[in-house]
Amino acid sequence: MTVLVVGSVAYDSVETPAGRRKDALGGSATYFSVACSNFAPVSLVGVVGEDFRDSDVEMLRSRAVDLSGLERVEGRTFRWSGVYGPEDINTRETLDTQLNVFGDFAPSLSEAQRESPFLFLANIAPSLQIDVLNQMRRRPKLVALDTMNFWIEGSVSELREVVQQVDVVFMDENEARSFTDSINLLQAANAIHSMGPSTVVVKRGEHGAILFHEGQPFLTPAVPLEHVIDPTGAGDTFAGGFMGYLAATENLTEEGFRRASVTGSVMGSFVVEGFSLERLEEATNVEIETRFRQLATLTRFEPLADDESLPMRQK
Amino acid sequence: MTVLVVGSVAYDSVETPAGRRKDALGGSATYFSVACSNFAPVSLVGVVGEDFRDSDVEMLRSRAVDLSGLERVEGRTFRWSGVYGPEDINTRETLDTQLNVFGDFAPSLSEAQRESPFLFLANIAPSLQIDVLNQMRRRPKLVALDTMNFWIEGSVSELREVVQQVDVVFMDENEARSFTDSINLLQAANAIHSMGPSTVVVKRGEHGAILFHEGQPFLTPAVPLEHVIDPTGAGDTFAGGFMGYLAATENLTEEGFRRASVTGSVMGSFVVEGFSLERLEEATNVEIETRFRQLATLTRFEPLADDESLPMRQK
Repeated sequence: MTVLVVGSVAYDSVETPAGRRKDALGGSATYFSVACSNFAPVSLVGVVGEDFRDSDVEMLRSRAVDLSGLERVEGRTFRWSGVYGPEDINTRETLDTQLNVFGDFAPSLSEAQRESPFLFLANIAPSLQIDVLNQMRRRPKLVALDTMNFWIEGSVSELREVVQQVDVVFMDENEARSFTDSINLLQAANAIHSMGPSTVVVKRGEHGAILFHEGQPFLTPAVPLEHVIDPTGAGDTFAGGFMGYLAATENLTEEGFRRASVTGSVMGSFVVEGFSLERLEEATNVEIETRFRQLATLTRFEPLADDESLPMRQK
Repeated sequence: MTVLVVGSVAYDSVETPAGRRKDALGGSATYFSVACSNFAPVSLVGVVGEDFRDSDVEMLRSRAVDLSGLERVEGRTFRWSGVYGPEDINTRETLDTQLNVFGDFAPSLSEAQRESPFLFLANIAPSLQIDVLNQMRRRPKLVALDTMNFWIEGSVSELREVVQQVDVVFMDENEARSFTDSINLLQAANAIHSMGPSTVVVKRGEHGAILFHEGQPFLTPAVPLEHVIDPTGAGDTFAGGFMGYLAATENLTEEGFRRASVTGSVMGSFVVEGFSLERLEEATNVEIETRFRQLATLTRFEPLADDESLPMRQK
């Protein structure tokens, strides 16, 4: 089944302890699409400027990402630049944000896109996320959204409105706590559940994620990596693997969501091993499946049988 | 089988976002003993001053901890005080350390203790850890050690010497990296393996631990907690559950170590739910087993069968 994604397509300039890149392909919809396209057809709605490179269009086309909704308008493509580290690669400082053509982004869905069964509202203004939802002809089987602190701080009422209408919310730990005014992750997840979404994915970077599906937490592991090059796009890539798995299997059971979360974690493990989408693009089906199996091995332990006890002394 | 532990017995004064305690029972050997005693008999070697409370002796005795090696000498018991938080409860600042009688600690093992099959060298000077090892009549089945940055910075050659002689090394992430000069955890674990130990446990606080047993990593989950009161002693409590499980089962296979690591994580989840040993002491066999089963549920996902593939598109 096709997954519709609405979000940013950008050129990023980043510096990390491993090096730097200038004007490398980025954007939430881009990372999501490339990850998701390993599993399901993707239709991308976004906007770029006249400077958007043909080679980047070609890369997305080569993965059968439907770009009929990628507008190209007068002006420059959205640009972001930031620095990770130096001590801790998970610490990020934004140096510059130039919205450019993205500042006037007004997503407009085609008739076919309005029928999409799976929808991912990437990190854009909550008012635009609501607008996209309103354009859908029927309620998709699954709607997910991502957001960021900028909207939690500046547009919280619109954000609450859209959260009430989606099935899956992706946030990192700090976002989930700040959105719900909770100091604790379990409390934060419960608060989001009570607004409507059946599923909350709390991203924890190198520590993986916690999937809360209908109140049941699942500690999603992260692949331990020897070399982390650039964390940009890890969250969107996770979401791409997650939604791709669900769209490909249409398995919306607890078990399906757990496997989707592991698939998201696997895809995230590739993207951070290179700048921009360099490593993610190269991930083969064999590599993806190998890491999925690896996460099962890395977390497996013999559970207690029903009639078995821990070897405890009488107290 | 009996577990011998050599380490500190202390009175701690701590302040956390949840409150404060003055001169509460603490010390690495204390936390270890209480956790371990749920599974196996413990013999404690340490030193306290004349001010050590009878009620604390009684508590340990009531758990059948052998205190024949707990010397009581003239002077005051070791005191530590620190503050956690205020923003992040995992951030700790030491306010004061008074070694008192612990400054002259010279562990002396009884004949019975020299035959102990399981030995835990808690966080004390590496030269004392070596001295204890030298007192053993025969090589125990399993020797584990814990340490801290203070020794990594100040006594690294003695620490390397003792690490070479043990089976299991417990360190937190920063300690493992700094001890091995690695930026990466996998590299750090490999470096420690190459010094001799078959097993390395890298503790990651609320994110659990990674057990590296003969090169195989196992991502040990942590119980997600609604209320963390006081992180003091979490590492020693983890080690106590870990060693207790192994001593009770004598199962030194990969599977045994994985379950031991989960048991350590379970015990650690109790101790941080209260100040000092308040919550740990109260943990019942039923509660401990329930959390062990809970960690299996929290991490379980359906692995791919041998003949099964992820639903991937041809690229």
